[in-house]
Amino acid sequence: MVDPTRIPQQLTRLFGLRRSTPLGAAPGTLVFDPDAHASEVKIIAYDPKEISERTITSPDEITSLERTGKVLWINVDGLGDEEMIRAIAAKFQLHPLATEDVLNVSQRPKVEEYPNQTFMVVRMASFEKERLQTEQVTMFLGSDYVITFQERPGDCLEPVRVRLRAGRGRARTSGADYLAYALLDTVVDHCFPVLEAYGDRIASLEDEVLDDPKPSATAEIHEARRDLIGLRRAVWPMREMLATLHREPSPQIKEETRIYLRDCFDHAMQILDLVESYRDVVSGLLDVYLSSVSNRMNEIMKVLTLIATIFIPLSFIAGVYGMNFDASRSPLNMPELSWYFGYPFALFLMALTAGGFVVYFVRKGWLGRS
Amino acid sequence: MVDPTRIPQQLTRLFGLRRSTPLGAAPGTLVFDPDAHASEVKIIAYDPKEISERTITSPDEITSLERTGKVLWINVDGLGDEEMIRAIAAKFQLHPLATEDVLNVSQRPKVEEYPNQTFMVVRMASFEKERLQTEQVTMFLGSDYVITFQERPGDCLEPVRVRLRAGRGRARTSGADYLAYALLDTVVDHCFPVLEAYGDRIASLEDEVLDDPKPSATAEIHEARRDLIGLRRAVWPMREMLATLHREPSPQIKEETRIYLRDCFDHAMQILDLVESYRDVVSGLLDVYLSSVSNRMNEIMKVLTLIATIFIPLSFIAGVYGMNFDASRSPLNMPELSWYFGYPFALFLMALTAGGFVVYFVRKGWLGRS
Amino acid sequence: MVDPTRIPQQLTRLFGLRRSTPLGAAPGTLVFDPDAHASEVKIIAYDPKEISERTITSPDEITSLERTGKVLWINVDGLGDEEMIRAIAAKFQLHPLATEDVLNVSQRPKVEEYPNQTFMVVRMASFEKERLQTEQVTMFLGSDYVITFQERPGDCLEPVRVRLRAGRGRARTSGADYLAYALLDTVVDHCFPVLEAYGDRIASLEDEVLDDPKPSATAEIHEARRDLIGLRRAVWPMREMLATLHREPSPQIKEETRIYLRDCFDHAMQILDLVESYRDVVSGLLDVYLSSVSNRMNEIMKVLTLIATIFIPLSFIAGVYGMNFDASRSPLNMPELSWYFGYPFALFLMALTAGGFVVYFVRKGWLGRS
Amino acid sequence: MVDPTRIPQQLTRLFGLRRSTPLGAAPGTLVFDPDAHASEVKIIAYDPKEISERTITSPDEITSLERTGKVLWINVDGLGDEEMIRAIAAKFQLHPLATEDVLNVSQRPKVEEYPNQTFMVVRMASFEKERLQTEQVTMFLGSDYVITFQERPGDCLEPVRVRLRAGRGRARTSGADYLAYALLDTVVDHCFPVLEAYGDRIASLEDEVLDDPKPSATAEIHEARRDLIGLRRAVWPMREMLATLHREPSPQIKEETRIYLRDCFDHAMQILDLVESYRDVVSGLLDVYLSSVSNRMNEIMKVLTLIATIFIPLSFIAGVYGMNFDASRSPLNMPELSWYFGYPFALFLMALTAGGFVVYFVRKGWLGRS
Amino acid sequence: MVDPTRIPQQLTRLFGLRRSTPLGAAPGTLVFDPDAHASEVKIIAYDPKEISERTITSPDEITSLERTGKVLWINVDGLGDEEMIRAIAAKFQLHPLATEDVLNVSQRPKVEEYPNQTFMVVRMASFEKERLQTEQVTMFLGSDYVITFQERPGDCLEPVRVRLRAGRGRARTSGADYLAYALLDTVVDHCFPVLEAYGDRIASLEDEVLDDPKPSATAEIHEARRDLIGLRRAVWPMREMLATLHREPSPQIKEETRIYLRDCFDHAMQILDLVESYRDVVSGLLDVYLSSVSNRMNEIMKVLTLIATIFIPLSFIAGVYGMNFDASRSPLNMPELSWYFGYPFALFLMALTAGGFVVYFVRKGWLGRS
Repeated sequence: MVDPTRIPQQLTRLFGLRRSTPLGAAPGTLVFDPDAHASEVKIIAYDPKEISERTITSPDEITSLERTGKVLWINVDGLGDEEMIRAIAAKFQLHPLATEDVLNVSQRPKVEEYPNQTFMVVRMASFEKERLQTEQVTMFLGSDYVITFQERPGDCLEPVRVRLRAGRGRARTSGADYLAYALLDTVVDHCFPVLEAYGDRIASLEDEVLDDPKPSATAEIHEARRDLIGLRRAVWPMREMLATLHREPSPQIKEETRIYLRDCFDHAMQILDLVESYRDVVSGLLDVYLSSVSNRMNEIMKVLTLIATIFIPLSFIAGVYGMNFDASRSPLNMPELSWYFGYPFALFLMALTAGGFVVYFVRKGWLGRS
Repeated sequence: MVDPTRIPQQLTRLFGLRRSTPLGAAPGTLVFDPDAHASEVKIIAYDPKEISERTITSPDEITSLERTGKVLWINVDGLGDEEMIRAIAAKFQLHPLATEDVLNVSQRPKVEEYPNQTFMVVRMASFEKERLQTEQVTMFLGSDYVITFQERPGDCLEPVRVRLRAGRGRARTSGADYLAYALLDTVVDHCFPVLEAYGDRIASLEDEVLDDPKPSATAEIHEARRDLIGLRRAVWPMREMLATLHREPSPQIKEETRIYLRDCFDHAMQILDLVESYRDVVSGLLDVYLSSVSNRMNEIMKVLTLIATIFIPLSFIAGVYGMNFDASRSPLNMPELSWYFGYPFALFLMALTAGGFVVYFVRKGWLGRS
Repeated sequence: MVDPTRIPQQLTRLFGLRRSTPLGAAPGTLVFDPDAHASEVKIIAYDPKEISERTITSPDEITSLERTGKVLWINVDGLGDEEMIRAIAAKFQLHPLATEDVLNVSQRPKVEEYPNQTFMVVRMASFEKERLQTEQVTMFLGSDYVITFQERPGDCLEPVRVRLRAGRGRARTSGADYLAYALLDTVVDHCFPVLEAYGDRIASLEDEVLDDPKPSATAEIHEARRDLIGLRRAVWPMREMLATLHREPSPQIKEETRIYLRDCFDHAMQILDLVESYRDVVSGLLDVYLSSVSNRMNEIMKVLTLIATIFIPLSFIAGVYGMNFDASRSPLNMPELSWYFGYPFALFLMALTAGGFVVYFVRKGWLGRS
Repeated sequence: MVDPTRIPQQLTRLFGLRRSTPLGAAPGTLVFDPDAHASEVKIIAYDPKEISERTITSPDEITSLERTGKVLWINVDGLGDEEMIRAIAAKFQLHPLATEDVLNVSQRPKVEEYPNQTFMVVRMASFEKERLQTEQVTMFLGSDYVITFQERPGDCLEPVRVRLRAGRGRARTSGADYLAYALLDTVVDHCFPVLEAYGDRIASLEDEVLDDPKPSATAEIHEARRDLIGLRRAVWPMREMLATLHREPSPQIKEETRIYLRDCFDHAMQILDLVESYRDVVSGLLDVYLSSVSNRMNEIMKVLTLIATIFIPLSFIAGVYGMNFDASRSPLNMPELSWYFGYPFALFLMALTAGGFVVYFVRKGWLGRS
Repeated sequence: MVDPTRIPQQLTRLFGLRRSTPLGAAPGTLVFDPDAHASEVKIIAYDPKEISERTITSPDEITSLERTGKVLWINVDGLGDEEMIRAIAAKFQLHPLATEDVLNVSQRPKVEEYPNQTFMVVRMASFEKERLQTEQVTMFLGSDYVITFQERPGDCLEPVRVRLRAGRGRARTSGADYLAYALLDTVVDHCFPVLEAYGDRIASLEDEVLDDPKPSATAEIHEARRDLIGLRRAVWPMREMLATLHREPSPQIKEETRIYLRDCFDHAMQILDLVESYRDVVSGLLDVYLSSVSNRMNEIMKVLTLIATIFIPLSFIAGVYGMNFDASRSPLNMPELSWYFGYPFALFLMALTAGGFVVYFVRKGWLGRS
């Protein structure tokens, strides 16, 4: 009915509307997007004493993975490798509905409790090529493992790895739930530089719109507005999700990690607050732009119209004395033309008229601020 | 008081305002719309082992239907066959208020518990002839049967039939409640291609409005806005309804089906979210259009006015030297006309005036961006 | 402080602001509006076996009324007959605060529980002389009677009387609470034709505004908007009131009537939904109108300005060759005038100038869509 | 930091922003505004049998006041008499925080429970000199007394005094809580004439804006809008406050008075409803005004531009035949000037041109509605 | 990705977006901003009998601080002294997450319970150099101490110190919780003069916009709007926070202090109310400005266009009689030129035309209000 290839890429990415599962498929059907990035799987295993990292290349390595009491973090970059993802799903008994959501990269952030697992969907915002991008990150938290799936290689989670390797603070001594918190926190905090970029953009838009409104500002304001709608769509459900995680007891999350989730929830609130404030400011900007354009245009029009209005009556006077009435037939026919001071009189009449208009305009205040 | 035939068809369909029951009729009165589609009744009966499908042509077949322990799905396409529908209502003891709602095809989506039955109303969105259409689908869920009524032949439920026939997954092993879920899920997910179509339309409207605003954009924006209001009206109560189904225990719905309804509820949330985001974007578009039109018009006006303003004083100068003062009567009367460089002087005066205005306009910045 | 006679009738009726009780009067004070319609009192008494109807003309008939176990429906049309109303209030022990509300015909719909009585206020919408009208209907529901007060003769309750007389269905076998439900349901459903009228009006306004915007559309849009605000004001509290009736147990309402009130509540929701959708559509219409007017005006202005701009430079050229420089004094003084091809040259110059502008305008795209 | 004397009086009064207590003062500090009205204290004491009224002039009379079992109503008009107010506070053990609120005449309406006392703040709206005024009224309700403080002499409570003196109804037989209710009810109902005045104003604004838009309408609409924001600010918290009083049990308020408070709450709801509806209508009015102005202006511009456009080409033709090409040098130089029908030809050409434009404009429909 | 130095200072301060903690750092990491003000630490210790104040210059003094049963108030102005702040955090066992928030000066106001401590973040608004400024104040409330951190020297808390030194009222006899309340109350009340400043600004903007709209008003309105968005962002969470403090029992806050917190909560409500009302008024102002500008411009345009329209036909007539048709060739060629009353006739024709237009304009009402 609708040709999906016609859908402009950007709106799709911004608002998230790509489903790989065909309509009407049975729930839990895994459909792999042939265009998805190849999967790259990295496993970090750690306990307070040691940490090991390795890259997995074959699904067999997943199947033969042993649980040694260490905390496991399996990170999958790219959702293109069907066998690998099926192997992980089988090994860790991921629920089919959740696995389906992993592959449909346009989920709303949410948290869902499954037996033995907490499933989380978040969106990682970034600001690339002057545009907002959001990438879906899904996470399974079990008793001693965290599995994360990302759409593409490259992420903002490196600081967490650095902290794990360094092994200071609570990073390695706490369990998988603390690792999940650290990942969530990093994703949420990653909105801050994006917001800074928008703060920057809005401030320069404000300056442009107030000082020197250009037609391109319309498009820029509209884009900023749409991006903020998109960002809000990503952050709002993350706030809900963090509130749920923080408030409702979950078997996978220890009591002492809860206090950290409250902190993370606070950050999400702060981000949402900023997004709303920015939207308010940007909404006003188009009105300000129209008002500025209108001011500038009025200024131009006023000067031009004044000039026209002064010269039109003058042209009329010149036109009168350009008429060709035959003075020889009647003394009434344009005697001015034969006056000694005829021409000076005409010029004086013109000056008087022009001066009269100028005085009138000045009195009315129409020249004061042109 | 109001001639119902005057009501434009489209607004009626979009916002749902056709009632076949006359005002003040007793509740539960069944009034059949003579223009309704003839009813076509299909019965699918299945258990994990086998599946049978047949088309019913006479109400007697309904009355003599035996309940064999299989799950029954009775689907009625078209609401025009009074006897058939009365036979079904009698056979399955459908509540009169619910049956009345089946015939009034402008119900708000809702779920109602009746003894031994759960009654559901949903709206199936589609995008036909470039316009949003919604069709009412009503559903009765009993212990071992599902009865669905649709306004017209043709639906989006074929994938469910395919899955039933294939018999894989949980499709045939689960009961009637799982079938009801599968139908709801298919109807809800059917909004995705509609939304994709709107995403497409909005994106091309954005391009048009920003690059090359045409007067027709006003109507297109208004129509997109109205359609989204209509879509929101259909989806919003579906979200409520799915939340109720998912949260409140119902005797007809088994615990293991509940987790699937949560997934379906998630999809409804995602759709509603998108509709709201689209509405936000479209609301901004009319302002952007007005701003673009205003920019374009200002650009035109500026150039034209500049031309006019430059030539009006020049015409005035030409008019002055077109006056017929009699130089023979007085040496003061237009001596310029007899100067040796009279004409060049006049042309120079004109060039000076025009040049002066041009310099003034450039300095003011009015020519810079025209 | 404010001369009440200056208040425009229509706004008053629409938003309901007529109080007959003077400010500061003791609560429960009954003040009769001398302009109110004379009261016409009709009593219908019925039980499953028989039904009687009569018109009461004297207050004594009220006082001597016997309660025979039949369900009584006393309907009062017009609030002008003080003695009659006082007699009814005394006979059925109506609470003074409720009776005061009967006379102040601008109540918000509400339900109030008094000992032995449920007091309800609803508003009956109608569409007369192309304008929305709302009329207050108050209702007292006791164990075996319903008393209704209306502002004026003429109502939408006739279908209920017809059903009572016919005696089919539950109409006569159920008690006073079912009668009250039937009346409420009729009043609520009576909003549907009003909404159809508005749907009609909005659709034709849309057509007019998009195809051929006339100045009168401004007033029509404003009036439709205001009427919908008024309708929303009437329906919103009816929704609340029906929710209360449906959810909270009341001694006057039997359990089996509750399921019917849910149906009535559904209709109120549907009406409210439509009113909100219509308001959304109408709100957008003024913007669309402004945009259409602006488009049309721009089209006119563009053509006119193009014409002016083309002719102004031509007039200038004509003006130049109309100057009277004395060719006899100098060969520089307008030698063109004596050229052999002088006049054709001037005409050619004009054609060139006009052509140049036309080419420029076409290139800029300003003539393309005029 | 801010010179308080610069604050415009009206905005201050409307939105309530005068604090006599200096910033950072200890809570409960009483600071008397030297500009406050001198206090006039009147005491009404009554029981079902008798009523006495007297005016207090010295604080000693307060201190020596005996509690005789009668209900006492102490009304203080004007907050300027420090000793008197301190005496009352001491005698009735008014809580310091509440007493501080009495003197800061910009409180939000609220109700607060203190031991042995209920403290209430309400705002009395009035419409003076075409402007909304609100005055703070504070009230202490004890077991057998009501103390009211008003900013200025003159109030709307006279009807309550009249009812007390008359001694009919429940006025004198009920206790202090009924008196408090009667006062609250009178204050709330006093909003009705104010709203009638605004209804009046809005209706005449509507007429003006639609029929004959004047520039002054902008200011009037803005003022009406701002006043309604102010009125909403006064009434909204009164609604909350009455809901609290009506729902939450308070030791000072008897059960039988509760039903009256529900009535009072209903009135507040009705007022708030009206304020919101009026705000909606007024919000739309500025758009309607702009649209009307734009319509009128377009009408003027259209006629004027048509005239200009018709005459500009005519002037051009006249200009052409005003050129001075020397026919003696060439037969090509303006032979028309020597034609026998030269002048009629020129006039005909002009008529043709003008006629052509008129036909074009009529066809385009630009003359149809001017 | 984003160069933080490009972020305009003002927007950052207004909406709070400066984090010293790098993205992805472990929670509780303290990162000191090298540009922060040097810390100045003052300790006030008091009990009902005596009070001592001293300034701390070395972290050792903190470490060796003895708890003597007196209430301690440690105030830190400036967040630049790492050792000092670490010493305080160690001595009073401040939670790392809370200490991190102290250094990130863009927190949302909040209250958090930690074991043995209540942590509060508030924002102190001020109005400096015609702009809104907000400064973060963090507070730790323990059983017998209050620790406050401020971004910069200079605060609004001096009145609390004065009250402590004076020792009157409850200031010294109540515990640390009362001190915390007094500080919160002072910070909240400090919004009142800021709001007075905005009330002032809005009122003068209103006057300017209605009487004499200048282009600069656009920027001023936008700035006022943005500042109010910023102020709302500071006050809204303070309201929530005070509601939490007032409603939820906290071990650090005694029951008798609770009633004071309710008062403080009331003030926050009042401020928020005012901010919302001001936002409403300011939002309307831009529309009023556009409407005023449009009115003024229309007035100018109308007069100018009238003048042009009157003179253009006159010029045409003059142009006609300026044509050079050769009267000697034909009696039809402009015989008017040779009439005895030719010139007066032409002048009369012009006067007639001008008069006709004037009469037409007056009748149409276009001259009435120019």
